[in-house]
Amino acid sequence: MHIDILTVVPELLTSPFEHSIMKRAQDKGLLTVQVHHLRKWAVNEYGQVDDYQYGGGAGMVMMCEPLANAIEELSKEKNYDEIIYLTPDGERLNQQIANTLSLKGNLLMICGHYKGIDERIRQQYITKEISIGDYVLSGGELAAAVLVDAIGRLLPGVLNDETSALTDSFQDNLLAPPVYTRPVDFRGNKVPDVLMSGNHKK
Amino acid sequence: MHIDILTVVPELLTSPFEHSIMKRAQDKGLLTVQVHHLRKWAVNEYGQVDDYQYGGGAGMVMMCEPLANAIEELSKEKNYDEIIYLTPDGERLNQQIANTLSLKGNLLMICGHYKGIDERIRQQYITKEISIGDYVLSGGELAAAVLVDAIGRLLPGVLNDETSALTDSFQDNLLAPPVYTRPVDFRGNKVPDVLMSGNHKK
Repeated sequence: MHIDILTVVPELLTSPFEHSIMKRAQDKGLLTVQVHHLRKWAVNEYGQVDDYQYGGGAGMVMMCEPLANAIEELSKEKNYDEIIYLTPDGERLNQQIANTLSLKGNLLMICGHYKGIDERIRQQYITKEISIGDYVLSGGELAAAVLVDAIGRLLPGVLNDETSALTDSFQDNLLAPPVYTRPVDFRGNKVPDVLMSGNHKK
Repeated sequence: MHIDILTVVPELLTSPFEHSIMKRAQDKGLLTVQVHHLRKWAVNEYGQVDDYQYGGGAGMVMMCEPLANAIEELSKEKNYDEIIYLTPDGERLNQQIANTLSLKGNLLMICGHYKGIDERIRQQYITKEISIGDYVLSGGELAAAVLVDAIGRLLPGVLNDETSALTDSFQDNLLAPPVYTRPVDFRGNKVPDVLMSGNHKK
């Protein structure tokens, strides 16, 4: 799977993909993630990618042209299955959506910043709008990182223990049971007897 | 506000707090975020912090002792308003919870990894369990980053334009309207006339 991410703060996305399971996914060649700086497609030499919003509300809006040009240029190289805009008013991400997206080949994720992106980009280019939850973030970057992680760990071969992903909470709408490890007795608080009996079905 | 984060992958959390609005919040002295490596409180010289789970399920469990010792040591320095465990089966984060947490002084966030933390730590130390959404991530690190961002941007003085946070989607259960910026005509797709009239209430 290949994932391209368009952002005005590419530096913010450095560490989440360079460690732990996302690093392993890339080291194994199962996932490639490329972060693109939107300023590369800025409308002028000052690197402008945002402007005041019509109607006079507070906050800047990401302009049409840099986004349109970026999306079109990147689309020449990759045939995207989905062009995803991370936004609080998108469809709320759940495990089912993550499962579905994990079966795709190429994804492009657009991180909103400031007050969001010009509505016309949403109409003309975006095929899927996703929210990671009902709260507001500084920008779409962490939302994209979350989405990449939720998808990436589902790719076959990424997790060491295949059954580990399958027994996750939410994978089957069943919350995982409490888990315990050694010592049996932690300051007087003991592991339930049933787990010590070897009969895990209980 | 001060936020401590306990994790086994501290490197993963480097870039999200060093850029954009979270950086500004810290530069202005409005927020301090300190990431602590749980291995500092490992049970042996090999840095062990996890072990096999009782009952035989797949995946490792984060042990009681490193977490308990870390929480107790950190609690000597800070009087935590909440000790938060990021977990998919916690209370689902929303803007209201973010608002409430933004009024606190000291928070400790525990990032789960592997199969989660020993149930006894949840019972004895955790005061609040939060999920950022109904999906599974590689660990609690990105969830903690999301929570810090959702809270941090609400601190007075963090955003340049105070009204900007107040007009966000979800802040008042009202989704933000579509936004537009220049040019008026983008490849034939025009900004709605009503926004050009100067009457934003419409």
